[in-house]
Amino acid sequence: MFHPLIRGVVLGGSMINVGVVGATGYAGAELVRLLSGHPNVQIAVLTSRKYAGEQFSDVYPSMAGIVDGVLEAYDADVLAERTDLVFTALPHQLPMELVPELVERGVRVVDLSADFRFRDVPRYEAVYQPHSAGTYTEQAVYGLSEIYTDDIRKSNLIGNPGCYPTSVLLPLIPLIRNHWLDLDSIVADAKSGVSGAGRSPSLTTHFCEVQESFKAYKVGSHRHTPEMEEVLEKEAGVPVQITFVPHLVPKSRGMLTTLYVRLLERRSDDAVRDLLQQFYRGAPFVRIRSSDRPPDTLHVRGTNYCDIGCKIERGGRLILISAIDNLVKGAAGQAVQNMNIMLGFDQREGLDQIPYPL
Amino acid sequence: MFHPLIRGVVLGGSMINVGVVGATGYAGAELVRLLSGHPNVQIAVLTSRKYAGEQFSDVYPSMAGIVDGVLEAYDADVLAERTDLVFTALPHQLPMELVPELVERGVRVVDLSADFRFRDVPRYEAVYQPHSAGTYTEQAVYGLSEIYTDDIRKSNLIGNPGCYPTSVLLPLIPLIRNHWLDLDSIVADAKSGVSGAGRSPSLTTHFCEVQESFKAYKVGSHRHTPEMEEVLEKEAGVPVQITFVPHLVPKSRGMLTTLYVRLLERRSDDAVRDLLQQFYRGAPFVRIRSSDRPPDTLHVRGTNYCDIGCKIERGGRLILISAIDNLVKGAAGQAVQNMNIMLGFDQREGLDQIPYPL
Amino acid sequence: MFHPLIRGVVLGGSMINVGVVGATGYAGAELVRLLSGHPNVQIAVLTSRKYAGEQFSDVYPSMAGIVDGVLEAYDADVLAERTDLVFTALPHQLPMELVPELVERGVRVVDLSADFRFRDVPRYEAVYQPHSAGTYTEQAVYGLSEIYTDDIRKSNLIGNPGCYPTSVLLPLIPLIRNHWLDLDSIVADAKSGVSGAGRSPSLTTHFCEVQESFKAYKVGSHRHTPEMEEVLEKEAGVPVQITFVPHLVPKSRGMLTTLYVRLLERRSDDAVRDLLQQFYRGAPFVRIRSSDRPPDTLHVRGTNYCDIGCKIERGGRLILISAIDNLVKGAAGQAVQNMNIMLGFDQREGLDQIPYPL
Amino acid sequence: MFHPLIRGVVLGGSMINVGVVGATGYAGAELVRLLSGHPNVQIAVLTSRKYAGEQFSDVYPSMAGIVDGVLEAYDADVLAERTDLVFTALPHQLPMELVPELVERGVRVVDLSADFRFRDVPRYEAVYQPHSAGTYTEQAVYGLSEIYTDDIRKSNLIGNPGCYPTSVLLPLIPLIRNHWLDLDSIVADAKSGVSGAGRSPSLTTHFCEVQESFKAYKVGSHRHTPEMEEVLEKEAGVPVQITFVPHLVPKSRGMLTTLYVRLLERRSDDAVRDLLQQFYRGAPFVRIRSSDRPPDTLHVRGTNYCDIGCKIERGGRLILISAIDNLVKGAAGQAVQNMNIMLGFDQREGLDQIPYPL
Repeated sequence: MFHPLIRGVVLGGSMINVGVVGATGYAGAELVRLLSGHPNVQIAVLTSRKYAGEQFSDVYPSMAGIVDGVLEAYDADVLAERTDLVFTALPHQLPMELVPELVERGVRVVDLSADFRFRDVPRYEAVYQPHSAGTYTEQAVYGLSEIYTDDIRKSNLIGNPGCYPTSVLLPLIPLIRNHWLDLDSIVADAKSGVSGAGRSPSLTTHFCEVQESFKAYKVGSHRHTPEMEEVLEKEAGVPVQITFVPHLVPKSRGMLTTLYVRLLERRSDDAVRDLLQQFYRGAPFVRIRSSDRPPDTLHVRGTNYCDIGCKIERGGRLILISAIDNLVKGAAGQAVQNMNIMLGFDQREGLDQIPYPL
Repeated sequence: MFHPLIRGVVLGGSMINVGVVGATGYAGAELVRLLSGHPNVQIAVLTSRKYAGEQFSDVYPSMAGIVDGVLEAYDADVLAERTDLVFTALPHQLPMELVPELVERGVRVVDLSADFRFRDVPRYEAVYQPHSAGTYTEQAVYGLSEIYTDDIRKSNLIGNPGCYPTSVLLPLIPLIRNHWLDLDSIVADAKSGVSGAGRSPSLTTHFCEVQESFKAYKVGSHRHTPEMEEVLEKEAGVPVQITFVPHLVPKSRGMLTTLYVRLLERRSDDAVRDLLQQFYRGAPFVRIRSSDRPPDTLHVRGTNYCDIGCKIERGGRLILISAIDNLVKGAAGQAVQNMNIMLGFDQREGLDQIPYPL
Repeated sequence: MFHPLIRGVVLGGSMINVGVVGATGYAGAELVRLLSGHPNVQIAVLTSRKYAGEQFSDVYPSMAGIVDGVLEAYDADVLAERTDLVFTALPHQLPMELVPELVERGVRVVDLSADFRFRDVPRYEAVYQPHSAGTYTEQAVYGLSEIYTDDIRKSNLIGNPGCYPTSVLLPLIPLIRNHWLDLDSIVADAKSGVSGAGRSPSLTTHFCEVQESFKAYKVGSHRHTPEMEEVLEKEAGVPVQITFVPHLVPKSRGMLTTLYVRLLERRSDDAVRDLLQQFYRGAPFVRIRSSDRPPDTLHVRGTNYCDIGCKIERGGRLILISAIDNLVKGAAGQAVQNMNIMLGFDQREGLDQIPYPL
Repeated sequence: MFHPLIRGVVLGGSMINVGVVGATGYAGAELVRLLSGHPNVQIAVLTSRKYAGEQFSDVYPSMAGIVDGVLEAYDADVLAERTDLVFTALPHQLPMELVPELVERGVRVVDLSADFRFRDVPRYEAVYQPHSAGTYTEQAVYGLSEIYTDDIRKSNLIGNPGCYPTSVLLPLIPLIRNHWLDLDSIVADAKSGVSGAGRSPSLTTHFCEVQESFKAYKVGSHRHTPEMEEVLEKEAGVPVQITFVPHLVPKSRGMLTTLYVRLLERRSDDAVRDLLQQFYRGAPFVRIRSSDRPPDTLHVRGTNYCDIGCKIERGGRLILISAIDNLVKGAAGQAVQNMNIMLGFDQREGLDQIPYPL
């Protein structure tokens, strides 16, 4: 094992034991990456249905000498015994079976699927499938870290946001809270790298089908749309319907979302930028960009940043652009950030990776 | 030299001699590719400032044995003597110097720059620079092949459309001509491969700055916006202002544009698709896609196709998606198509490349 | 259907009907691309186990309007009735079941698998599996088009070479036939694009596992090694053992092989180049490169070319470099070339695609 | 500025001040990335000719909020006053002018160019240009960290190895020191990502010229060859000539080198692996891979690891494969490792980044 030098030394404190259920998917592996460098945390259990019995570094050889622990089959009692907090990084429908038994055993849970993101269960069921643990959605908190920090702090069950909703909501919520936004005007044109489709091989993720391809998919029917709308409605206090079109980009990581909205009153670029900057003052992972440095997914690759740019068009329409790493701020990074908030750590713990220049 | 087998045999006819001015840029080289396979055409002159005296296949080794002709310096008299029609594939501002002297010598010209795309010279000058050949813009025809076919047929000077305008205008014009479109509602979110930035090396086109990057550029200020607006206004008969944001995709070729518009009356998906299909009946290069096969740049790579898809959203907003190869339908292919129309050839001559499966 | 203009007009002759068995894999789809542009050929049957009943252009939307024919289940009688020649583009082990019944029905076959490449059945069985049609391997001809042209012309069953063997054998055979090569010295370091792994999704071909990856695979154990050695031995008349290491390149198409060999006598660069040029004089698809233009897979992309470069090192070792498109000269293109030879067509028919500049 | 949480706290010690001369090239920027996360180091000066006066994060917007310091023009006195150690990351020929004046002022220098890698000045001059600071090469130490650790510890001037030499020498030196290697047999087939060509735009690094391209370059004439040979000769005690062919891979980072050598006596895979493992026991950045997990550049991306695999072929030839990140172990990472050795820090300080799963 690689023994990091200073990391993991908590002065006058003890380490928190965490588990990752579904550690070999891309979000799970990214959790392992981030948690293995977290100073206050010890990875106690990693589970995998497919690879139980193998070393994590057999599945991810990059981690040889860093995380060589053996993957286990899922067992609620084992997790309860050996961990304080569990990340569930599984396809939706599975967590609604497992999470309740973990919560009942006193384990805190950050769930990365859609199962605990919705307060409105019928809305969830309309696009996913019947929910077998609907009552737990009431105690779950939507883990948009910068927005619901206080609720997250008090919660023991987090529904970690989807990547697209994170990229759409962070730029919009400051405008909604200040009553600047024309709620009927929202168009979100989003572009995601291939890792968003997960690690399971499919024609969609085949290199030769992606390279030199660019396309929209699930036009007008992506399941992240109702997730966004539920949050926007909660913020606005009225029903909200948005137009959302996701696209697939021939790259591994990164999501850029271009939002086209109208404001209720005419504003300047600077006014919008000031509003955003003011709103996110103190938020270590939101960077408001000047107009000559528009967000670029390369600038946030591997990090928990959400970079936001804005521009008022000649006709008064506001263009907002956000860039995140779909696996970090869009999944594992925000999950760790939520854990930090829940446990009273500095939000940046384990998330202070310096971005690569390329 | 490679001697294609059947190509170039015009029964009872003679070959047309063509020249390409600026043959070593990407649009120029693409013209050479297409023209070298054109059955009715002979490449008589290729010019290059930078590589004059070298073989074309020294600059593009892929063409060894196919086009080995020597690149020449530009000379209007030589072009007039040896060619019937010239393609000028140069940066804007140069063609306005050269094209008049070619036209005066009786040579037909298809210009791929912006210099002869505008009827409204001040509009051109507002975003480019002063125009020294403004009077020629009056006789020039905007070469959007499917739309202005009759004018192109009678013209001797074509202002070949930009790639972005082609991708935006082809889906919109049928709606405008049928008075379905709310002209105040147009948002165009466009995504282009790197070849659109040309062959001159720059940090923008550096592999390491592009790979794993995705970003918007020239937000609200791209020079193709007034070009589109001039055409939209001509079609609509009233002033039109659109919102246009181009993005750079980590791929060599291909452009996908997602349009968000509102219709004056509620329509169904099928109604829109029928309208488009009716409008482009007989147009060999426009394919209207069914909703389960949205356009994909990979499906048009290297070809002159413009694939168009459409979808009405829950809220009634219409999403139109177009895919073209920016170097073919967005530049050299449309230029050849325009030549075919000017010279009375079948539009498909030289443009019937079978697309690669990948 | 798109109706190509001149193609398909055979003066004073009739069209040949061909079938493609396994038309939806990458090699099969590439066959469809090439055959649909072939002037003397009509595609009469396309089969697919997985997609039988669907249109070819549903599986490959790029082909909409070009090849919309319906995929059928395999049926030997139907193929015999409707075709003169069949390409079998299936994984090994399947063709040895199907090819005999086609041949017995008088259909000519070009098989793209390994099943009929070997004369030495035990050698085949040592790396594949027991061969159920071993007797047919005697009448089969190894379809390395430039080398075994005369045998191919007389054959009704071709074992079409593997992509790696094509890239290794074309540079080496001229040296062997002239007794220049030290047969104990051969090292072949080969690099292939991802399409070589086929269209079936797997972790190996997942975009995120390929992008920014580069690795060797099957080091010292790739099944193309005995295929190469059988041919080298046939040419040399003595046993030959080579060192062969394939690598996977993050690109869709293209194979570059770097060969390190020793010559029996000291030779100059020019002498080697002259030998190669002399040997391949008249071969339309082999281009011997000068030393300042080393082969590049981009220069042969989508074409049937094999570009070869050579360089004598200070120490006397000869470095040979070949570049092919693994799906064209390495599979479907060479198959069509072999068909052309078998049927007495010009070798270039259907294969005179102009390469893209990028 | 982003304030890392624990980093930078040196118990009972003071921080070392470092400078980076040429901070905006790729190697320079990578140094900034690594040094900004180094617990014992403070970046005191960053210089750039081109961008002097701008913020580092204007040139690399990914670093906004992390390294916002202003770039300065080079000034030896300023560097001497404000730093203890300087990294020079400049094209060769510049450092031989600047390094002497830094050394004379008592500053320790790690030079990333070729200027101080050679002991044999004529050998340097044969492939670079006349050396104006030849006497300094005598005190310089070749910074192959795992091999010359003791010399590095005592030195104040390091000639940091080239990326190709690092990838070639680390697998070979254990075999040479144990007298296993046939020194006449060395063939090195190396493949590098595009960042190795630097940040200056050129046709070689243009995205469209790289994507779907794969090619060798400088065949038999790359300037890293004499660098390798000088070290191999020092190790072997006799003249050594190798065959070295570099190739360009369409990816940003990463270098894979496949070595083909003969051993003086027949050995097993396990014997070679044991030798390597024994040799690099205690070296935190060398990982000897088992034969079922061959090295992959993706597994070392962004890290200082050198992964090595080995395989004895049927014929007895040994295949060695090494993977490094050309910008880290091949440049900036090894430079930081050398600094750690020079200053008595743990070698891993600042270099314990957890690799990305993708």
